[in-house]
Amino acid sequence: MNFSSRTDLTINSGLNDIFKTRDSQTISFAGGLPDNSLFPQKELAQAFHEVITNDDPSVFQYSAEQLLPLRDKITQKMKRYGVNAKSEDILFTQGAQQALSLAAQLLIDKGDGIVVEAPTYVGALAAFDAVEPSFYEVPVDNDGMNIDALEHILKHHEVKMIYTIPDFQNPTGVVMSTAKRKAIVELANRYDVVIVEDEAYRDLRYTGTQLPTIKQFDTQGRVIYIGSFSKILAPAMRLGWLVATPKMRADLAALKGSTDIETSSLTMHAVNDYLAANDIDQHIDEVRNIYCQKKDLMYQALAENLPEEVEFNNPEGGFFIWLKLPNNFDTEEFLDQYLLPEANVTFVPSKNLFTSKNVLNGARLNFTQPTDEQICEGCLRLGQALKNYRLPIAN
Amino acid sequence: MNFSSRTDLTINSGLNDIFKTRDSQTISFAGGLPDNSLFPQKELAQAFHEVITNDDPSVFQYSAEQLLPLRDKITQKMKRYGVNAKSEDILFTQGAQQALSLAAQLLIDKGDGIVVEAPTYVGALAAFDAVEPSFYEVPVDNDGMNIDALEHILKHHEVKMIYTIPDFQNPTGVVMSTAKRKAIVELANRYDVVIVEDEAYRDLRYTGTQLPTIKQFDTQGRVIYIGSFSKILAPAMRLGWLVATPKMRADLAALKGSTDIETSSLTMHAVNDYLAANDIDQHIDEVRNIYCQKKDLMYQALAENLPEEVEFNNPEGGFFIWLKLPNNFDTEEFLDQYLLPEANVTFVPSKNLFTSKNVLNGARLNFTQPTDEQICEGCLRLGQALKNYRLPIAN
Repeated sequence: MNFSSRTDLTINSGLNDIFKTRDSQTISFAGGLPDNSLFPQKELAQAFHEVITNDDPSVFQYSAEQLLPLRDKITQKMKRYGVNAKSEDILFTQGAQQALSLAAQLLIDKGDGIVVEAPTYVGALAAFDAVEPSFYEVPVDNDGMNIDALEHILKHHEVKMIYTIPDFQNPTGVVMSTAKRKAIVELANRYDVVIVEDEAYRDLRYTGTQLPTIKQFDTQGRVIYIGSFSKILAPAMRLGWLVATPKMRADLAALKGSTDIETSSLTMHAVNDYLAANDIDQHIDEVRNIYCQKKDLMYQALAENLPEEVEFNNPEGGFFIWLKLPNNFDTEEFLDQYLLPEANVTFVPSKNLFTSKNVLNGARLNFTQPTDEQICEGCLRLGQALKNYRLPIAN
Repeated sequence: MNFSSRTDLTINSGLNDIFKTRDSQTISFAGGLPDNSLFPQKELAQAFHEVITNDDPSVFQYSAEQLLPLRDKITQKMKRYGVNAKSEDILFTQGAQQALSLAAQLLIDKGDGIVVEAPTYVGALAAFDAVEPSFYEVPVDNDGMNIDALEHILKHHEVKMIYTIPDFQNPTGVVMSTAKRKAIVELANRYDVVIVEDEAYRDLRYTGTQLPTIKQFDTQGRVIYIGSFSKILAPAMRLGWLVATPKMRADLAALKGSTDIETSSLTMHAVNDYLAANDIDQHIDEVRNIYCQKKDLMYQALAENLPEEVEFNNPEGGFFIWLKLPNNFDTEEFLDQYLLPEANVTFVPSKNLFTSKNVLNGARLNFTQPTDEQICEGCLRLGQALKNYRLPIAN
């Protein structure tokens, strides 16, 4: 019994490894999880209560179309991002992940080109693996994708889609400059390519000034914008959205229907009620304050504990700090052979964040989920483990 | 900007047409929707309330694995169906639809063979279209798939997967005989094929005796069993499940992860709470009583109102009655040109329920969603429309 070739690719994407722990004592810097203590439980409970007890059974039923008042609220949010979207441009998805999967399904036949940042989000690579594309990697500079490298690829290869995380890039934390946001749209226009702009972290800026979205510069309907409630409200809502042209949106909706019929009417109603009754921006402000403190705490703890050969950044937002170890260091080997078994700490090694799988000396550290104590203790153990490990560093 | 070839196939599957109405006055026999008034609203509200207010924020978080107590409850249910499944064989999905989509993704490379019943569930065809298979149709006899036709196909073509709805087949209402359930497993063993057994309607038997599942006869781990809470609890739970070997289940879970990361932890907890606090079988009994009455009412109304050239069945369970009109009758044309615009009634015409799209004289009628009044009025209008339509029937 042979499985499809997409199965081989997908099961080896490394997406599942993110949740790898040894036991309940493991300090995990691996996942991309929000802080458990920041979910607005009382307010969400109230919203579900209102929706479920309002005597309208249709919230439990299939819904022919996605809840219009909630789509309207997204258009308002998009407007503040400089994007003039209409409700018919909005499609709700099972988190941002399903939006990534649908975009790839819409655009990619087997072998078609996708440009990805190197490194990038492992879950996006898993979603794209399922349509068996040809991947082209573009290095991430300090101000985002290397545009010269991007243009070189577009000039010499058949590319259908560019995938980018312009704000607080996962995993590097890099913010793409405004100039590059414009440049990438110009290139997409010139080479007839669609840009998939993954903005799951956009609301979580801790320092510096918000830049325009790429979608704002889109004059030809070439940018599929992706947002999510997972990081700003709660992952269990499983609610993301995409913004696209009405034609694209209709085709993406049909692909979604074939995949899971629809997003839960109950969830859409509950989130709509939550947004009507609460100021989510105030909630996001609170979340940002805490995450900024955690980020500072981890940055400080890394500075105090890591050997000086290890480089790391101080991101302006998002969920992650990116480590760069010496070139001959293998972070996956270190994780499996020492860090997890000996120090009971995990992170995401860089290997699976590159489609080439040949960059071994990076690691992604999450600072939002662990408690302050875990951040301090985990960084201490990480530093000690690096010093004790049999290695170039320990020489 | 060209979209993928799977997009063309999927958007033309006809899945979306099921929800086509003219206005809020339309009497729809088209959808496969449960009766709005039968959702256990109070009990579900209580379950959500318990889960959300229990001070455990993890119900809002990502969950590394699917809720074990709920998987255990499914293994108990499967045991009563003669299937000895373990919790590691169970994967929760976004309704049965996602299970269909994942099974196809697991097994099918472009061009690989899928055997489907003719006619079959339009949503399954849409899910399968996304992997661009070669379809082979097997006629549905009064006791299920024509086994000779199935064997002929397996002998002469490369087939990876057989898709069947053995209980109250969608759309024909046919129940596959026990002998055929055994025979199909034997054929799958002989020709190295996987069977996808869609049992979304299994609990909804109104008359006659429950037969064994196909999975019960599976000795080689070749049957992927699919169940759902959509028809017995509420569609907005978006909760289905599949049962497969641990290896298949793991690969299907990886494919699911690439598609949408996971099924909502909140929903799984709420359904688990509902099942712990309530007797769902008693609820299902109530649902079956009502649906049986509605089925009888529609059967009677059709008998009273339809021209005698129209054949239809009296199903033992499920959601649908299947109409067969004279061979030269086109139900899609009738729907679009007369039934919907003139009588404001809809059904699902047969065309898109056959991959060949060349059987035009069938129609699927749903009796669970419409009220008693709508059933009577809709059948009256349908009968009059058929008599008034310019057609072979009206001669």
